[in-house]
Amino acid sequence: MSELSRIGVAIATDLLGEFDALIDKRGYTNRSEAFRDLIRAELVRESSSRPAGRVVGSLTVVYDHHVRQLEEKLTELQHNHNRVILSVLHIHLDHDNCMELIALRGTSADVQRFAGLLAATKGVKHAQLAITASADAL
Amino acid sequence: MSELSRIGVAIATDLLGEFDALIDKRGYTNRSEAFRDLIRAELVRESSSRPAGRVVGSLTVVYDHHVRQLEEKLTELQHNHNRVILSVLHIHLDHDNCMELIALRGTSADVQRFAGLLAATKGVKHAQLAITASADAL
Amino acid sequence: MSELSRIGVAIATDLLGEFDALIDKRGYTNRSEAFRDLIRAELVRESSSRPAGRVVGSLTVVYDHHVRQLEEKLTELQHNHNRVILSVLHIHLDHDNCMELIALRGTSADVQRFAGLLAATKGVKHAQLAITASADAL
Amino acid sequence: MSELSRIGVAIATDLLGEFDALIDKRGYTNRSEAFRDLIRAELVRESSSRPAGRVVGSLTVVYDHHVRQLEEKLTELQHNHNRVILSVLHIHLDHDNCMELIALRGTSADVQRFAGLLAATKGVKHAQLAITASADAL
Repeated sequence: MSELSRIGVAIATDLLGEFDALIDKRGYTNRSEAFRDLIRAELVRESSSRPAGRVVGSLTVVYDHHVRQLEEKLTELQHNHNRVILSVLHIHLDHDNCMELIALRGTSADVQRFAGLLAATKGVKHAQLAITASADAL
Repeated sequence: MSELSRIGVAIATDLLGEFDALIDKRGYTNRSEAFRDLIRAELVRESSSRPAGRVVGSLTVVYDHHVRQLEEKLTELQHNHNRVILSVLHIHLDHDNCMELIALRGTSADVQRFAGLLAATKGVKHAQLAITASADAL
Repeated sequence: MSELSRIGVAIATDLLGEFDALIDKRGYTNRSEAFRDLIRAELVRESSSRPAGRVVGSLTVVYDHHVRQLEEKLTELQHNHNRVILSVLHIHLDHDNCMELIALRGTSADVQRFAGLLAATKGVKHAQLAITASADAL
Repeated sequence: MSELSRIGVAIATDLLGEFDALIDKRGYTNRSEAFRDLIRAELVRESSSRPAGRVVGSLTVVYDHHVRQLEEKLTELQHNHNRVILSVLHIHLDHDNCMELIALRGTSADVQRFAGLLAATKGVKHAQLAITASADAL
C-alpha cells in the first residue's frame, strides 16, 4: 500500500448530507473509502475510453455448446489472443448453455477487439465486457 | 447557495496523483469542484434507479416529419404527459429530419414511461433520455 | 424517406416470443419498427465511439446562476464552440438553479470536448451528454 | 436448441447498408446472428431493470489483499450470499492486488445487493457487475 495523503474538500452541507445518506445505505462505514471508490471508478472510465490505456477486467460469455464447431472456434480465438487472457472459469449453466468468465489484461483497444470478435461468433448468445480497473492506477 | 462544510479525506498519494492529472486534463482548476461533481453524478445514478426518485433531465428525439400523422401523434403524446414536460426546443436538422429536445421534471418512473412511449412511436428514429439531476439534491 | 428493403431473419421461436412480449410492453405496434430502432441505437453507439464519427445530440446542464461570473463564462464557452451548437433552450428550475438544453451537431470528438469543458466549469452541477444519432445514418 | 422461425423485416435500404457495414466490421458473417444478438442484449437490459428479473452474470472485483482482515470479510460475505454465487476464479494480479471473477445467478435485486455490499467493503478497489443474460431467455 502506498503512502497516504490527507486533503480538505469544501462541499455544500446539504450535498454532503445527501452523499452520507447514500453511502450509508450502500453499506460504507467510512466516507474516505467511498470517495476513493468514486475516484477509481472515474479513472477506469477514462482508461477504457483511451485505446492505449492499460486495463484489467473480464469478459462474460454465454453460448450454446450444441452449436456445431463452436467450442473449437472459441478455443482457437482464445489462443490467438492469449496475450490478453489471464485465465478462464467455465460453468455449465444448464443442459444447453455454458458460461465462461475470461479474465483479461491489456490495452483497452486489444481487450475490446477480442471481446468484439468473440461476441460476433455464431452461437455466442451474450458477451459482456467489464473493464474493471485502470492497470496504471492499481 | 447552502452553507459550506469542510471535510478531510484520506487517500493514497499515488491515487490522488492520478486523480489530479485526470481533472487537470478535463479543465478543472479546483479539486473540490471535481469532488462535488463526482458526488452529484453518483446521486443522479441513484435517483434514476428508484422509480419514485424525483429527477430533472431531457429527452432528445429525432424523427422524420414526412411520416404520416407522426406530428399529430407526438403532439398528442406530449399533451397527455404535459405534467412531466417543462418545455420543448424544436430543430430542423435537414430536409427530412427534425430533432426535439424536451425538458423534463418528475418521478423517474413517469419520465421513463413517457420516454418509452415516445421511442416506440412509428417514425421516431431515435429517442435518448438523459436524467441529469436528482431533483432532491439540487 | 429512402427506398425500402425486405429481408428475412431466422430466429429461435422462443427468443422471438420474448422479443415480441418486450416490444408489446413498450408500446410498439409493429415489429419492423422495433428492429429499425435497435439497429439505429447500435449505429449511434458505434459513431459515438469513433472520434471522427459525425453525430447529433444534446447536452443538458444544470447550474446555480448565483455563482459569480458563471453566466459570463458559460456564454463565452458556448461562443467559442458555436460551430457545434445548433441552439439552446433555457429553463428556470427554481430560485437558484437553471437548466440548459444545448442542441449539438459535429464530430464525436468535438462534441465530447465541448461537453467536458462545460462540465468542468465551477458552478456547473451537472452536465449530461446524449449522443442521439449518427449524422450519417439519418 | 429450440425451433426456428423465419420472419420478414422491412427496413430502409440506406439503413440496412449502414447496418451491414457495421456488422461486417465486427466480424459477423451472418446477418440473422447479428439480429439475434441485438435482441438478446435488449432483453438483458430489460431483465436487469426489473428487480425480480432472473439473470446470470459476473462480478469482477479488484482488492488489496494486504488490507487487514479483508480476505476474511470477503469470504464471509460470499458465504452469506452463496445462494447467488455459482463459482469464483481468483487471480494474483501483482504483489498487492487480487482479482476475483464471481459467477452469479439469481434475481436482479439479489445480484445487485450482493455486488453493492462487496463494493462497499473497505479495501475493495473496484467491483464491476456485468449482468450478462436474462435467465428466462437462455
